[in-house]
Amino acid sequence: MEMTGSREVVLVVDVVRPEEKMLWHSLSALNLKPKILNVNQVPLKMTECPGEIALIRPVSMFKAVYAAAALEAGGCRCINSSFSILYAGDKILSLTTLMRHGLPVVESVIAMHPQAALQVLLSQKKPVIDKPPIGSWGRMVSLVKDSETAKMVVEHREAIPASQARIHIIQEYIDTGREDIRCFVVAGECLGCVKRIASDIEWRANVALGGRVEPLGEGVEELCELAIRAAGALKAFYAAVDILKPKGASTVLINEINGVPEFKAFQKATGIDVARALAEKVFEEFR
Amino acid sequence: MEMTGSREVVLVVDVVRPEEKMLWHSLSALNLKPKILNVNQVPLKMTECPGEIALIRPVSMFKAVYAAAALEAGGCRCINSSFSILYAGDKILSLTTLMRHGLPVVESVIAMHPQAALQVLLSQKKPVIDKPPIGSWGRMVSLVKDSETAKMVVEHREAIPASQARIHIIQEYIDTGREDIRCFVVAGECLGCVKRIASDIEWRANVALGGRVEPLGEGVEELCELAIRAAGALKAFYAAVDILKPKGASTVLINEINGVPEFKAFQKATGIDVARALAEKVFEEFR
Amino acid sequence: MEMTGSREVVLVVDVVRPEEKMLWHSLSALNLKPKILNVNQVPLKMTECPGEIALIRPVSMFKAVYAAAALEAGGCRCINSSFSILYAGDKILSLTTLMRHGLPVVESVIAMHPQAALQVLLSQKKPVIDKPPIGSWGRMVSLVKDSETAKMVVEHREAIPASQARIHIIQEYIDTGREDIRCFVVAGECLGCVKRIASDIEWRANVALGGRVEPLGEGVEELCELAIRAAGALKAFYAAVDILKPKGASTVLINEINGVPEFKAFQKATGIDVARALAEKVFEEFR
Amino acid sequence: MEMTGSREVVLVVDVVRPEEKMLWHSLSALNLKPKILNVNQVPLKMTECPGEIALIRPVSMFKAVYAAAALEAGGCRCINSSFSILYAGDKILSLTTLMRHGLPVVESVIAMHPQAALQVLLSQKKPVIDKPPIGSWGRMVSLVKDSETAKMVVEHREAIPASQARIHIIQEYIDTGREDIRCFVVAGECLGCVKRIASDIEWRANVALGGRVEPLGEGVEELCELAIRAAGALKAFYAAVDILKPKGASTVLINEINGVPEFKAFQKATGIDVARALAEKVFEEFR
Repeated sequence: MEMTGSREVVLVVDVVRPEEKMLWHSLSALNLKPKILNVNQVPLKMTECPGEIALIRPVSMFKAVYAAAALEAGGCRCINSSFSILYAGDKILSLTTLMRHGLPVVESVIAMHPQAALQVLLSQKKPVIDKPPIGSWGRMVSLVKDSETAKMVVEHREAIPASQARIHIIQEYIDTGREDIRCFVVAGECLGCVKRIASDIEWRANVALGGRVEPLGEGVEELCELAIRAAGALKAFYAAVDILKPKGASTVLINEINGVPEFKAFQKATGIDVARALAEKVFEEFR
Repeated sequence: MEMTGSREVVLVVDVVRPEEKMLWHSLSALNLKPKILNVNQVPLKMTECPGEIALIRPVSMFKAVYAAAALEAGGCRCINSSFSILYAGDKILSLTTLMRHGLPVVESVIAMHPQAALQVLLSQKKPVIDKPPIGSWGRMVSLVKDSETAKMVVEHREAIPASQARIHIIQEYIDTGREDIRCFVVAGECLGCVKRIASDIEWRANVALGGRVEPLGEGVEELCELAIRAAGALKAFYAAVDILKPKGASTVLINEINGVPEFKAFQKATGIDVARALAEKVFEEFR
Repeated sequence: MEMTGSREVVLVVDVVRPEEKMLWHSLSALNLKPKILNVNQVPLKMTECPGEIALIRPVSMFKAVYAAAALEAGGCRCINSSFSILYAGDKILSLTTLMRHGLPVVESVIAMHPQAALQVLLSQKKPVIDKPPIGSWGRMVSLVKDSETAKMVVEHREAIPASQARIHIIQEYIDTGREDIRCFVVAGECLGCVKRIASDIEWRANVALGGRVEPLGEGVEELCELAIRAAGALKAFYAAVDILKPKGASTVLINEINGVPEFKAFQKATGIDVARALAEKVFEEFR
Repeated sequence: MEMTGSREVVLVVDVVRPEEKMLWHSLSALNLKPKILNVNQVPLKMTECPGEIALIRPVSMFKAVYAAAALEAGGCRCINSSFSILYAGDKILSLTTLMRHGLPVVESVIAMHPQAALQVLLSQKKPVIDKPPIGSWGRMVSLVKDSETAKMVVEHREAIPASQARIHIIQEYIDTGREDIRCFVVAGECLGCVKRIASDIEWRANVALGGRVEPLGEGVEELCELAIRAAGALKAFYAAVDILKPKGASTVLINEINGVPEFKAFQKATGIDVARALAEKVFEEFR
């Protein structure tokens, strides 16, 4: 197939992380002429697209969503789309979308008022997780083991002015041995999965909280299949899918999906070049 | 047609306004057995629906979206759906969706950083509107006529911690003679349109800001057709569509869409029973 | 002594609680002609005082401080003064002032950055209290027993935009058997003390959190003496002084001081008419 | 007089600006052995002082106040004291303190509720200034010329969650030809005054907003005398005093006082070595 010289990819950023540098190199290597668009510096018109495909990478979830929406209105094909970034970034929209697609998730209750949240939290016999719908890197994901912690979480959350922070997603605490699984999906294919193991002083396995990453040998097929279906439910071109494997259970549960994922730690642990894989799939979109 | 006794509508609220009372009466009159579900009091499981159809009426936009999403996951048919409420409630998602459907909107620029916003605002020769993507009743919709006001808006917006409040939608100020038009669409039909006229001490025509409402006689067909297409673009079962008619121009522009609209003032000005019309269309959904 | 008719007391409020009603009656009974000044309705000029003495009662700490400051500039004698309300209302200013007066307080560390707070919290072997400098009714006063709770408190506190909420006062947890003591001081005299006993599902003894109040029989003299000295250190005309009695210890510690105290529960438990006692002392100030 | 080797100054910072570097050098040159104490890194005990005198320089007003308070409780002599930093940093406390000392200030009204603020703003015939009590570098100081701007300011301010941001100081706009005067006082002596001239696109003269600084030749004595009295009213060891000279008027008004002032621009315009002058006065305090 003949190639024209005009295929240009817009790399949309706010802060440039190692991931964005890797993507720039991988796109350049495929002659996709990446152009940086920094949404903190350039206002976005809704009537133009400075390339054919836009790779949406702002760290700020809302900046990513709005940049994608504006560029889509201007005619860009956005990867991921504003819809996918929004529905992956908001944990209630993710959970409910996955459920409507028949995918297994952690059973959850939504409480929208401090009294309703306290009622749920104080009635639990076992530890539960309480988290707001918006938030990255495990931030404010709280393990509630007793009534003191329950009140502490509810009182503090009320003091946060963002409306969404005052919404509570309350879930059974799944004992996974302080581990979780993260699989990478690109264009309907699974690149592989890793295990994230929480540090000694932390129950959450997020890398930002000190979790370490190990490649996952066995049982990857089933996990990969689930991750592909999860990414599909959110119409994501690519995604990192977090999965929980309850201790002693035979089934797994989808926990969260990231539509603008970091992948440095995954790449280091597995040797898989995520940036290159993504750039190649973007390249194929031009055909 | 035969009716079964099982058709139940859940009326989902946080605060009960006159609109919700009217809806309760209209639903009851049609034997639709409305049950109040107050999301400030009752935590929402995602696995059950306490009726077949849920009419989503919380005043808080995020509570409305999340209630609809949770109930949809539990099997409810939600009116409006979480998607429609979210995409109508967020002004950037509305604008870009309408544009992608080829509908006429006010030309807009999105600025995501104070410097980018100032750059846009200070380069304008004519007055512009600056508004955040989330917000009701005209709140924080600012008319920027000079550099002093531009800086005032940007500095204040930065001090608001909600991420979305710091995003700027900047639009040419459309001189409509301090009026706008609001049309009501239910199930693909247009109930009619009204004119909202700003009070003497206010340029915004919102009723919450003192605007008064008058029935609109002529030219309703064209406006109605546009409103129906706008509601369709957002997949809204019903919606109030705000339309701007620039002075001296022959075309009109869609300004905003409300997916959980108030309708007391519309009903009073036109004599049209919105609650009853909506309840009847909900009734038909059971067939 | 002769009395003139001109002695007028301004009762400054934002919300009217039972305490303010009692004060109004007690002031009226002494012919002090209370005039209500609602700071939510009336802007305050700094050049006038609508009475001779102003009794400062807004629930909002900052409204109380600023109302007192404005009225003092206008020539009012304010009870309490802006200084006393501010230095009582801010827990760091209270603690450090009491310490400089040689009074016994709970040993405290101030951390001004999340990393510094975590460092202190994670190095503790015993439970500690973490609280922000501003806040009433025990709100956000957190009992930190383990590293999970430590991180939860620090992460949530960071998400609160008010600068002061992100400052941490970290104190050894004093085991008092879930009780504390509250003494009332008016014009250098101690009206008495009560014991506040936490509810079964709460470790904090605040009445707003369900604590019940009992009169305190023995050992009141020593407590009263301490409370009088504490009120004096803050130059408060009247104050409620909260005191902790560590289990098994012979000494007591001053915990907090309230410069706009509620006293309904104290009055009910002791039969002491606080409003009348305060009104009488205000009356004496006119001589 | 004999000198011991033990005289040590603690330089308390959060962020290190050019001013703090200059102070470090000037203190070192006088053999005062400055030790940096970064309050973002080091938790503060209230029972110890790591030197004899602490020079309080955090950019964050509350960090400065609380650091000074904690160190004072530990036995430090703080320059400036927690009291001076707090009463200079809070514009209502400054204004009312200056008024009680009989010093000339801009006439001001305090509004504590949006309705009260709107009532004041909408009743003005001439332009007014609206500013919150806390804030540096002219931020959110708004020039309100019409009812549209009035509503804009009130609506935005309400959306800011910090209680103090929702308090309005409303003042007659003083036409100074877009200039103000800043005098530097150290230990009861006036180092000199400068004129700050607003940039072409800004009415506020703050250096952070592009204002340029020029030395002030004539009439400095009277200004200096006023500045000394203002610093004295706030018990400040040193301070920058901002003064307004209304066009065509013979008298001047004190506008604001800064208790942790920046002085790079002053130093450059006048050639006066502020850091050295301050260090020398600190040195004299050891005698």
